[in-house]
Amino acid sequence: MKGQATIGSTVLDRLHRLGVRHIFGIPGDYVLSLYQLIEASPIKHIGTTREDCAGFAADAYARINGIGAACVTYCVGGLNTVNAIACAYAERSPVVLLTGSPGLSERTRTPYLHHMVRDFSTQREVFERMTVAAVTLDDPLTAEREMNRAFAALLRYRRPIYLEIPRDMVHTPLTAGGRPLCLEDAPSDPAALEEALGEVRTMLAAAKRPAMLVGAEVGRFGLQDDLGRLVERLHIPIASTLLGKSIIREDHPLYVGVYGGLIGREEVQQFINDSDCLLILGSILSDVEDLDASSPLLSEGRTIHATADRVAIKHHRYESIKFQDFVQGLVHTPLPSFPLRTMPVRSVITEAAPPADSSVTLKGLFRHLDTVLTDKTLIIADVGESLFAAADLRVRHRFEFLSPAYYTSMGFAVPAALGASFADPTLRPIVLVGDGAFQMTGTELASCVRYGQAPIVVLLNNRGYSTEREILEGPFNDVHEWQYDRICDLIGGGVGSRVRTQGEFEQRLAAALADPGRLHVLNVLLDPADRSPGMIRLARRLGKKLSTDKP
Amino acid sequence: MKGQATIGSTVLDRLHRLGVRHIFGIPGDYVLSLYQLIEASPIKHIGTTREDCAGFAADAYARINGIGAACVTYCVGGLNTVNAIACAYAERSPVVLLTGSPGLSERTRTPYLHHMVRDFSTQREVFERMTVAAVTLDDPLTAEREMNRAFAALLRYRRPIYLEIPRDMVHTPLTAGGRPLCLEDAPSDPAALEEALGEVRTMLAAAKRPAMLVGAEVGRFGLQDDLGRLVERLHIPIASTLLGKSIIREDHPLYVGVYGGLIGREEVQQFINDSDCLLILGSILSDVEDLDASSPLLSEGRTIHATADRVAIKHHRYESIKFQDFVQGLVHTPLPSFPLRTMPVRSVITEAAPPADSSVTLKGLFRHLDTVLTDKTLIIADVGESLFAAADLRVRHRFEFLSPAYYTSMGFAVPAALGASFADPTLRPIVLVGDGAFQMTGTELASCVRYGQAPIVVLLNNRGYSTEREILEGPFNDVHEWQYDRICDLIGGGVGSRVRTQGEFEQRLAAALADPGRLHVLNVLLDPADRSPGMIRLARRLGKKLSTDKP
Repeated sequence: MKGQATIGSTVLDRLHRLGVRHIFGIPGDYVLSLYQLIEASPIKHIGTTREDCAGFAADAYARINGIGAACVTYCVGGLNTVNAIACAYAERSPVVLLTGSPGLSERTRTPYLHHMVRDFSTQREVFERMTVAAVTLDDPLTAEREMNRAFAALLRYRRPIYLEIPRDMVHTPLTAGGRPLCLEDAPSDPAALEEALGEVRTMLAAAKRPAMLVGAEVGRFGLQDDLGRLVERLHIPIASTLLGKSIIREDHPLYVGVYGGLIGREEVQQFINDSDCLLILGSILSDVEDLDASSPLLSEGRTIHATADRVAIKHHRYESIKFQDFVQGLVHTPLPSFPLRTMPVRSVITEAAPPADSSVTLKGLFRHLDTVLTDKTLIIADVGESLFAAADLRVRHRFEFLSPAYYTSMGFAVPAALGASFADPTLRPIVLVGDGAFQMTGTELASCVRYGQAPIVVLLNNRGYSTEREILEGPFNDVHEWQYDRICDLIGGGVGSRVRTQGEFEQRLAAALADPGRLHVLNVLLDPADRSPGMIRLARRLGKKLSTDKP
Repeated sequence: MKGQATIGSTVLDRLHRLGVRHIFGIPGDYVLSLYQLIEASPIKHIGTTREDCAGFAADAYARINGIGAACVTYCVGGLNTVNAIACAYAERSPVVLLTGSPGLSERTRTPYLHHMVRDFSTQREVFERMTVAAVTLDDPLTAEREMNRAFAALLRYRRPIYLEIPRDMVHTPLTAGGRPLCLEDAPSDPAALEEALGEVRTMLAAAKRPAMLVGAEVGRFGLQDDLGRLVERLHIPIASTLLGKSIIREDHPLYVGVYGGLIGREEVQQFINDSDCLLILGSILSDVEDLDASSPLLSEGRTIHATADRVAIKHHRYESIKFQDFVQGLVHTPLPSFPLRTMPVRSVITEAAPPADSSVTLKGLFRHLDTVLTDKTLIIADVGESLFAAADLRVRHRFEFLSPAYYTSMGFAVPAALGASFADPTLRPIVLVGDGAFQMTGTELASCVRYGQAPIVVLLNNRGYSTEREILEGPFNDVHEWQYDRICDLIGGGVGSRVRTQGEFEQRLAAALADPGRLHVLNVLLDPADRSPGMIRLARRLGKKLSTDKP
């Protein structure tokens, strides 16, 4: 940025220094001056078709890049991103939502300006509920401190923040001006950290069947290498949550599988539940894991559980230890090493491949898909069979699996492919998406065409919301069928095809992989009654939970 | 509803008795039991592709039918409707948002359930900011009183309400049970009403140049017939706001035109501003009208201004008078009648029609469109040229013009066509939508195909966000071009065509009007530099406002 530091230029400068190279969004009159600044900055604007897609793209970008950003106009833009920012908040992804608002000088003249909902502050009040900091930068004296506070919260919790600049304040010079980025954040209490690490040592020393369970935050804080060293040192079995899938490469000899009460395989659940010392790193425990207060693991004090929020050991908590300090402390503290013990059998496919002329099935599709994954493919799974069947895929590389596995918002995957491709253009996204989810955001593929991206979309077309079908069937679960492969005609790019048999699937997927410069859409015509083993496990367990709801 | 009244059945019963015949939305596991009840009720569920589209459809339905409703799942569904509900709140449309949430019995077991953002109450807290009542029906003892309170607020203000039912409470019997719908609402204070009407009489008796300005609330309260009687009695000129366009038929001899600082014609502005007694009924005054506190009309005490919120006369307010009582009071109170005076010249098209082989232009398109409107066509205008050019169309029937003219959220028109067609199947919607807006929600046309509806979509394809272009040009205003007419191939229904010349437009529109059973999409290829007179007026006035923002 040349010239005097203004509120707008300082925000963009901070974003750039924190690693934002692309910003997703749609302009509008309350944010045009900010767009003009972006145009002149080293950050590239990526236009999306909808604002929620900008939010999902920024989220996926953040999961890979460490931080992501979207820039949208006031209310009609911002309020369209609420669900996407809520997803990033729930799944702990560091997204910056940058937005304009009516100028301060306009507000005095009339209480109602276009795009307004109730008060000038309505949009910010909404986002206060789903960000770790929501600030309006409307004062040149405090703007820098306020934005620094927000960025510090983002780095501390790796969760979304909201920055609003009234349109007549974008070019306002900072009163203090141009101080270097100083993200004050309280460090961990060294005594508390030492005490906690001592406890871990003692618990592990007494353990016979220790294990680890890792979640998404390890990735959000960029601690995968530390985790790798810790696993080698301790030499104990490690499972991941579904949201944390691909934090550790799944061909690792100590990798047990996905742990999760709703989706995990029974053997993995039992193995982890049977542990006498479980080190849980970077995962909240939700109904998806089914590890609640009533679990013996927790009630019997067999857990060490660290997240960005706090470190909990047995039944007590440390509030003053930062997550990354704890993980790195574990790496550098002397801890015992354990002999290899018998682990649950891997889910290995033993059946023969289905004949090429047989109708395509989820089983055959995922069996084959598993064989083509490399460390240059990136699976992005939407919600439904796309996720539940994909849970059993063996990923080979960090960041090789992206999915809204906890918040489970449909429509994430296609816009996420747009964001992921900008975050790491060396990866080829394979998007797994159901028909219902594709109808929500699938046309965002137009932006992939626009920017020359080439994801492979595997569209699981079973004419319905099948997760709902498994729980409670009714005509409301039907999805009107589209000719999904024809989307390439609409958006003016890519290759669409219809897949009826196992052989066609294998052939079309091979053709897509061999054509790295073009978008491919495989419209996979499934039997609506086909279900993956993952979905059957999930529905059985969800059905048990819901039995109290019955009339 | 048979059997004992439950929380769920009572809500549906209320909705039905208030006039809801269709409910828009997408199921999800937290709302499945409610969907099961809907299935068994006389209310028909209409599946949409996205939840925000369900919100827009319900809004359009409400504008025509008097009340509309959407039913969506917790957070991943509900939070996708925030912008649509905000639009309904801002434009005062009575929409009921019905949603599920985690069961009370589940909440005790684990603090984190899938689809959760922060707290169990996060979704409700968001909607408290854009509804006139947001209630969670989680107690059989109070549920009926709570829902009655919410419905009473909807009827009082004709604005959205939020009703949440935890999934294990849907089938819970009401403790008091089955009392008739009793919407307690304080009546107007008769003395205050009489005093206010007396003031109006006095002001009108002294007036030489009285006029009326009417807005959308007259329609929301179903007072069009009362308005018509009032106009005949007073015999004074009447203008409408842009949001209120079509409240009065525009071929009425006393109709002056659209009044609005940003979009209205200069002659209409001057005529209304020159009035010595302006009766404003059912419109907030926003920057779109440009009638702010600094206007001589207001500062000199020449206005009577009634909305659902309050009645303001000169510089004082009555808080205890209901809008409909005031309007009906005006109809029944003795008021003077005025002689006809000279009115501004109507915007009459005097130029000849462009030659059939000339490139299609906005001017030629709207000139022709104006000639085909009947009382069986319904114009639904999205934001941008779709709205600004359409402002000059002369509508002939009440409800003949729908548009988010104040909140101006792009993507309203296509889902609104779905809702409007259910609200009044005898009207043929003509949807005016720009390319940017169509990319947001245009695929909702799939639901029109699904339910056998036949809107005519006139897609103004100028490859950009042209309102933004007029204010501040940059590459961020570019829209990647789709082959919009090919959408019919994707969604499996309808007739798409490309329109290059005036003759093609006239011919394709005639073909569409002659084919009432099928959806038609006209991809109108415009010169990106083409602008309507309305847009030029708007951009000139907006540009003047924004001059303070320049760096």
